[in-house]
Amino acid sequence: MIVFVNRFAPKGTAEQFEEAFTGTSDFMRDQRGLRGHRLVRSLREPSLYYNVAEWSSEDDFAAAVRDARFTPHAAGLRAVASSDPHPCAVVFETERHDDGG
Amino acid sequence: MIVFVNRFAPKGTAEQFEEAFTGTSDFMRDQRGLRGHRLVRSLREPSLYYNVAEWSSEDDFAAAVRDARFTPHAAGLRAVASSDPHPCAVVFETERHDDGG
Repeated sequence: MIVFVNRFAPKGTAEQFEEAFTGTSDFMRDQRGLRGHRLVRSLREPSLYYNVAEWSSEDDFAAAVRDARFTPHAAGLRAVASSDPHPCAVVFETERHDDGG
Repeated sequence: MIVFVNRFAPKGTAEQFEEAFTGTSDFMRDQRGLRGHRLVRSLREPSLYYNVAEWSSEDDFAAAVRDARFTPHAAGLRAVASSDPHPCAVVFETERHDDGG
């Protein structure tokens, strides 16, 4: 399993970025190996977003971004935001536990 | 629920950073509201790490970092890495699905 982390800084409005990202998300959701992903927005710097995605393998992730159908999504996102993409290996993780809250 | 994303760039060795981070992780794991967290390391830029944590609420997160017992952990991490911490709101997420792989 790998975790893909991408930091986005919208060039225009938040709405433009979120709309473009939604299109990419719809494409990625159907690709083999995507276990789930989440778009989050900084509470202290609202012009900053992170996409955090889990993929079954680096190969599945690479195949999805190489797919010709991904090209227009990538171009659409580049038009509305700068990004800093990092496929990452998991160093360690804690399991979830019931915190009663 | 909030997602806390922190990008770390170790100043010394990876081992020094990971050791300091493990101590912080041990502290955080026992704090109310931590649902889980994961340290990941960029595959294309190995000097870059992300901590991605899920907290039940922003209040629980704030209480944990205000806790006096957290102070030495924060100082220890500052000594070995620069960081860029962002508590974040979830904009949207896809559910996991079985991709057969």
